[in-house]
Order: sequence, then structure tokens, then C-alpha cells
Amino acid sequence: MQAFRKFLPLFDRVLVERLTAETVTKGGIMLPEKSQGKVLQATVVAVGPGSVNQKGNVQPVSVKVGEKVLLPEYGGTKVNLDDKDYFLFRDGDILGKYVD
Amino acid sequence: MQAFRKFLPLFDRVLVERLTAETVTKGGIMLPEKSQGKVLQATVVAVGPGSVNQKGNVQPVSVKVGEKVLLPEYGGTKVNLDDKDYFLFRDGDILGKYVD
Amino acid sequence: MQAFRKFLPLFDRVLVERLTAETVTKGGIMLPEKSQGKVLQATVVAVGPGSVNQKGNVQPVSVKVGEKVLLPEYGGTKVNLDDKDYFLFRDGDILGKYVD
Amino acid sequence: MQAFRKFLPLFDRVLVERLTAETVTKGGIMLPEKSQGKVLQATVVAVGPGSVNQKGNVQPVSVKVGEKVLLPEYGGTKVNLDDKDYFLFRDGDILGKYVD
Amino acid sequence: MQAFRKFLPLFDRVLVERLTAETVTKGGIMLPEKSQGKVLQATVVAVGPGSVNQKGNVQPVSVKVGEKVLLPEYGGTKVNLDDKDYFLFRDGDILGKYVD
Amino acid sequence: MQAFRKFLPLFDRVLVERLTAETVTKGGIMLPEKSQGKVLQATVVAVGPGSVNQKGNVQPVSVKVGEKVLLPEYGGTKVNLDDKDYFLFRDGDILGKYVD
Amino acid sequence: MQAFRKFLPLFDRVLVERLTAETVTKGGIMLPEKSQGKVLQATVVAVGPGSVNQKGNVQPVSVKVGEKVLLPEYGGTKVNLDDKDYFLFRDGDILGKYVD
Repeated sequence: MQAFRKFLPLFDRVLVERLTAETVTKGGIMLPEKSQGKVLQATVVAVGPGSVNQKGNVQPVSVKVGEKVLLPEYGGTKVNLDDKDYFLFRDGDILGKYVD
Repeated sequence: MQAFRKFLPLFDRVLVERLTAETVTKGGIMLPEKSQGKVLQATVVAVGPGSVNQKGNVQPVSVKVGEKVLLPEYGGTKVNLDDKDYFLFRDGDILGKYVD
Repeated sequence: MQAFRKFLPLFDRVLVERLTAETVTKGGIMLPEKSQGKVLQATVVAVGPGSVNQKGNVQPVSVKVGEKVLLPEYGGTKVNLDDKDYFLFRDGDILGKYVD
Repeated sequence: MQAFRKFLPLFDRVLVERLTAETVTKGGIMLPEKSQGKVLQATVVAVGPGSVNQKGNVQPVSVKVGEKVLLPEYGGTKVNLDDKDYFLFRDGDILGKYVD
Repeated sequence: MQAFRKFLPLFDRVLVERLTAETVTKGGIMLPEKSQGKVLQATVVAVGPGSVNQKGNVQPVSVKVGEKVLLPEYGGTKVNLDDKDYFLFRDGDILGKYVD
Repeated sequence: MQAFRKFLPLFDRVLVERLTAETVTKGGIMLPEKSQGKVLQATVVAVGPGSVNQKGNVQPVSVKVGEKVLLPEYGGTKVNLDDKDYFLFRDGDILGKYVD
Repeated sequence: MQAFRKFLPLFDRVLVERLTAETVTKGGIMLPEKSQGKVLQATVVAVGPGSVNQKGNVQPVSVKVGEKVLLPEYGGTKVNLDDKDYFLFRDGDILGKYVD
């Protein structure tokens, strides 16, 4: 978690870590990589302070660190921090979040 | 309904479940899949808190959970929750709703 | 008229029913379908509450149920309600209305 | 003039009637149709109430019924009212007007 | 000058008359038409009242009748008034003006 | 400097004069024209009053006459004043300025 | 550092210096140039005063001189100051910054 403490997204950007794809079926059969679906679920690891609206006020982002979110199928910027891949999404592009 | 309680759309997104296509005619004849029309009617299963306007105020969405709505023929994002297909639409893209 | 009472367009959408094309000339000759002009006159059957402007206020639509309007040649969304075709237009796309 | 009393353009639309093209030269020679220039002068026959700005106020159109205006070479929507051709232009697209 | 008194541009449009191209060099040699540069200097002959901003206030144009201006190389709308060619430019498209 | 006193850019336009390209290397070798880099440094010779924002207030330009600025590689409008080439840039397109 | 003191970016532009690419692996093997990844980390060396919003107020940039930032893979303008390459980015295009 040390990497995220050091990296701060700007504006309304949200840094997420995708969940790992399931490589084994429930029945125990190993899945080849091309059969593994694209993982759209991710965990928020860092959030920007929010975007600035036309009145000059900061609009905070709508998700918090640690929340589990649903990503859109396309978009996002891959960033490599400490040899690990993360993704930056605009707050407004995240589809929704999972709440208990 | 458990899945919807756990998933919360962000901003002005609306999660809907399409009605099932009619597979049998009124006269009782089974319809092949390609003869079944695209279903544009759907039930709202979860709504976002609304979009934020330029003054920083939240504009609530115009539909409520449980309402039956008419979807546009194109658009929307398919999302899979608990192995079931739902669709996310922007509140402003939903054409109308059915009221009693 | 029962269908319209049940369907409520959202935002600034207006549901209209096109007038039927004239299939017989004034002299009594039947017109083949391709000689029938596209009907641009329609009757408003349902209106949305209006769009929300940037200040968060609702801007009502400029036509009322029952008014006869002139539609643009292109555009509009065909919707089927109770096995009958209607069209949804944005309030701002309707060219004008006929007043007595 | 009866047709115009009955038709009311919406928003900032202006209904105009183009002046008739000159079909005879000053010297008295008849002009074939393709030698007749496109007529850009027109008379305003009906005006909409104006567009609604972001503050929700109506901005009246800048021309009045009866004024003679200069139209842009392209654009406008032909509308047929009582078997006669008129044109609808947005107030902002009309180039200028002739004043005495 | 009679033509300009009669024509009033709308909104932020400016009616200009281009200066005549030099057809003779300083040394007295006549220039063929294709060697004559495009004339970008013009005199303002009529101005519109100005555009209306989002608050509903009129923003006057920045040039006055009689001022000599520099036109952009492209753009503008040719208008023919009293058999003479003039050009309409948006106030914001005029590059600058010559002051004494 | 007489030319600039006579020409006044409109709105947020800035008139600049590019520095002359170096035609001789530090070692004294003459450079052919195609080896001379594009000169992006320029001196401000005239500035417009500024653009008008949506509230109707003038926003002054951010550079002053005499300042040395860095131009973007592309863009700008070449204008010829008194047989000399100058360039007009929007204030917002100038990359930066050199301060002592 | 003398170059940066002399150059001041305008508006919301940020001048950065990219970190040098690693040319030797951790194991001591020299990397050919095409194997060296594109360096997206940079140090802020000068910042503009900020952009002006619609109310006429200056919105300061979100990074400070000396901060280490993460650049997007594409975009930015290369500028050469004192024979050294720097890059100008809009404040809003910088992905994030590294904080201790």
C-alpha cells in the first residue's frame, strides 16, 4: 500500500487496482488467458481532490479509497507504479460502486 | 433483488432490467429468436444520486426504483451483476415512464 | 387516449401523433403510397415536465396536449404504444404550432 | 395573410416569404429560370416568442412581422402552408434588415 | 452611402467595403488581375447592435462606421446591395483596426 | 515602430514580430535557409484590449508591448503591415514569456 | 536553474523536465535506446499563474515548482530553452503527483 500513499491523482482522477481475473472455474478447470473475461471490478486506491467548477469551487470525487467500483469497458489510463499496473479513471466515468 | 441493494450507480446513471421478450404469440405460436422484437421497456432497479450542475448542486434523477420506463433503441451500457444482465442509462436518455 | 394517460415523456420530450396522410386527391382519385407526401403535421398527445437548466430550474415545454404542431422533416424517435406508432420530439425541435 | 395568423413559430424561429425572382430584365428580355439569381431578400411573416437563455428568461427575436430581411445563401427550412412555400430561419441566422 | 443607411446588420455582424486592389505598381506598370494581392483592408460601413450574452445584455461591437479594419484572409459573407459587393463579418473575426 | 502605433488588434489578439533567424553559426559558418530553425521567439508589438467574458467584463491580455514571448510552433495569422510581416496570436495561445 | 527563472509559462501551463531514462538495468546491462521506456515522470520547473475562469478569477495551477509529477503518455509541447528540452503541459493534463 506504500505506493498509493506516495501518489496523489490530480483533479477528479481516481486511481484503481483491478481485481485479478479468475483463472480457474468453479469446477476447478484452469482457464486459458483468452477465456478470462475482462475484469471491470476494481478497488479505489487513491483519489484526487476533485475538479474545480466554473465558480472556482472544488467538487469532491464521489468515491473513497477502499471502495469497490465498476469500471467502464473502455477508457482509463494505465499507470505503472512500483512495477505494478494501476488505472486512472475520471470520477465521472466510473459506472457505480458496490455498497454493503 | 439482493444484487441491486449492493450496487449503487454514480451520478445520473440509472440501472434497469429489461422486460423479457415475448416468445409466444397471443395465438400460442412460439416465436423464433430473430422474430422477437427488441425489448425497450424496462424496470428501474437502482438510481444514482444525480448529476452535479455548474453551481455544485445535485440534480436528482427523474425516475424511481420500481418504475417502468421506455428505453431508447440504442445506447446504454450492459453490466453483469450476479450473472444477470442489466443496463445502465443516463437519466436524460430515458425516453419516458409509464404511470398508472 | 388511454395510452397517453399512461405514458409520460421525460424532460423536454413531446409525444405526438402524426396526422394521417391523404390517400385520396380532392378530385377523388386514390393516391398510391409513394405519391403521398410525408405528413409533418401532428397533434401533441403528451408532454414532459420540461428540461432542467443550469440553475436547477425546470423550463416547461412550449406546447400543450391537444395542440397541432409542425414537425421537422427529419428527426424524432418512433415509439410504439399499444400497437400504435407515435413520435417523440424534443420541444426545441418542433418548428411551430397552429393557433386559431 | 390568413395562413400566417394561424401559424406560430416556436422559440427564436422566424417565418419569411422570399421576394419573387425577377423574370424579366430591365430591358424587357425574359430570363430563363437558371439565369434568375437566388432571391435572398424576404419579408418576415411570423416570429417566434424568442429563445430561452440559461437564466430562464425569454430573449425576443430581433426582427418584426413586415420587415424586409436579407437571408443567408444557405440554410433555412422550407415549410408549406396553404400550398405556398415559406422558410423558417433562426433569428440569429438572418444577416440583416432593411430600414427606411 | 445611401445603401448603408438602409441596411442594418443584425447582432454582432459588421458590413465592410474592401479597399480597391492596386492595379498599377508604384513604378507605373499595370498589374494583371492574378498578380493583384487579395485586399484585406476594408472600411466599416454598417454595424449591428451587438450580440446578446447569456445574461441577456447586449455586447456592442468593437468597431465603428468609417473605421478602417484588417480582415482575415478567409471567411465573411458577400452581400450585394445596390449592385455593389460588400462583406459581412462577425465582429470577433475582424483582426484589428487602424487608428491615427 | 510607427506601424504598430497605427494598428490596434481587436479582442485578445496579440501582434508579434518574430526574432530573425540565425543565419550564421557560432563558429562563423553561414547556414542555408533550410537549416535555420523556425524562430519561436518574438517580441510583442501591439495588444488588443482583451476578450469579453460571459459577464460582459473585459479580460485584459496577459502580455505587454515589448515583452519577449515564446510562440507555439503552429498557428497564428501572418499580417503584412508597411511591407513587413508580423503575426497575430490569441493571447491564450502564447506559451510563455521571458522575464528578467 | 537559471533558464527557468527567466521563462514564465502563461495561464495554466506547467513547464516540466522529464527524468532521464534508465540506460542500464539493475543488473548492470546497458539498454539499447529502443528498449528504454518512455519516461513519464518529470519535475516541475515553472508554473503559470493559472487560468482565468468565466467569472474573471484566476484559478491557480495544482502543482508547485520542484514537485515530481506523472505525465500522460501523449501530449505536451516540447520547448527548447538554453539548448535543453523541456515540456509544457496544461495543469489539467498532468495525471498526478508524488508526495512524501
